[in-house]
Amino acid sequence: MSIRALAFDVFGTVVDWRASVIAQLEAFGRISNVTADWARMADDWRAGYVPSMERVRSGELPWTRLDDLHRARLVELLAGAGVTAADPEIDHLNRAWHRLDPWPDSVEGLTRLKRRFTITTLSNGNVSLLTNMAKRAGLPWDCVLSAEIFHHYKPDRETYLGTADILDVAPEELMMVAAHPSDLRAAREAGLRTAFVFRPAEYGPDRTLNRPADGEFEFIANDFLDLADQLGA
Amino acid sequence: MSIRALAFDVFGTVVDWRASVIAQLEAFGRISNVTADWARMADDWRAGYVPSMERVRSGELPWTRLDDLHRARLVELLAGAGVTAADPEIDHLNRAWHRLDPWPDSVEGLTRLKRRFTITTLSNGNVSLLTNMAKRAGLPWDCVLSAEIFHHYKPDRETYLGTADILDVAPEELMMVAAHPSDLRAAREAGLRTAFVFRPAEYGPDRTLNRPADGEFEFIANDFLDLADQLGA
Repeated sequence: MSIRALAFDVFGTVVDWRASVIAQLEAFGRISNVTADWARMADDWRAGYVPSMERVRSGELPWTRLDDLHRARLVELLAGAGVTAADPEIDHLNRAWHRLDPWPDSVEGLTRLKRRFTITTLSNGNVSLLTNMAKRAGLPWDCVLSAEIFHHYKPDRETYLGTADILDVAPEELMMVAAHPSDLRAAREAGLRTAFVFRPAEYGPDRTLNRPADGEFEFIANDFLDLADQLGA
Repeated sequence: MSIRALAFDVFGTVVDWRASVIAQLEAFGRISNVTADWARMADDWRAGYVPSMERVRSGELPWTRLDDLHRARLVELLAGAGVTAADPEIDHLNRAWHRLDPWPDSVEGLTRLKRRFTITTLSNGNVSLLTNMAKRAGLPWDCVLSAEIFHHYKPDRETYLGTADILDVAPEELMMVAAHPSDLRAAREAGLRTAFVFRPAEYGPDRTLNRPADGEFEFIANDFLDLADQLGA
């Protein structure tokens, strides 16, 4: 059966969250005239991502959008670093995740892939985050789908099957595209096809990432242009 | 408070459903070598729209996407006209609603409005219908929202407030754009701002539509280019 639609993970796969968040924390520091280890704060902010979603996935918290999970973590991190900021400043800084820059190949690669397939986000980021990001970065999505639509965070099965259902394609006609094996494994268990895109710089220069073994996923690509080549788009 | 986002009704407001559906029914007739009053069938198909959604809105039916409501009505209409067709033909014909042509000003007008505002669909059409339509017609939505996301059909209040919530704007920062006063009145009751776009040809040459009275809605425009002019976009 042929591939009709591609669903993209976003943070790390489409956009370089780490460099973008560090740059925005640094800009905040300059404007606010405060200093901190901003790279470490970016990493700590991201490190809070999975545990905070886990509280929603487990039912400990009711559905909470990612912006709100991010903000609670940011408030803790600023307090921990002894940085004080007013609410509107914190809101603006929290929306750093709406202003992430794409990897150099993302816009051109998505534009090519869009000619042949329906392309959608399937991110844990909320709809407004993804919409604002796409508008600023010029990401040409056909539609914007999110954990927020399904009230389930990835890797819950409902997100992958919900995306196939709402696009009106069979799970095996939908391919998940991500830089993270855990996301792809969960997509595969739900019946989706899988494409791994290697983003070795996602976690910065001090962390080495390995390519998955050949054959672990149906496609393994160096970037979106390579994926477009492999898919004939 | 300023306008941040525009939510567009689609059938009749963005696309000319009637001429498009008639053309596709006629094409079906030629290929299948059957004749019928296709213009009347298009009007009867559309006439089933509000009553079928009403069965969902009232709770008589569980949530049912518009494609499925459309299909049930189409099967009745074909049977009533003595036309037989195989399931794949009926499926293809039913997706005529995915292949509607935009009004001549729609793409250029939306492209202008998108520079200044977030632009989304807010249609009773399901997400795959709207996504397929946008891809074929080149409609440059920032995101695709639908009654299907909220499991409520317009004019249920949940659709208007749900759109503001998911875009993370206040109701008074969101403007509903539609060619139908009933949609706009319900949006206004939910706290949204309103723009009426006059589409006098929506129901064909034999039905005369009147412009609403000046002042009934915040903006009254002749088309999307006029709306863009009035909004400074």
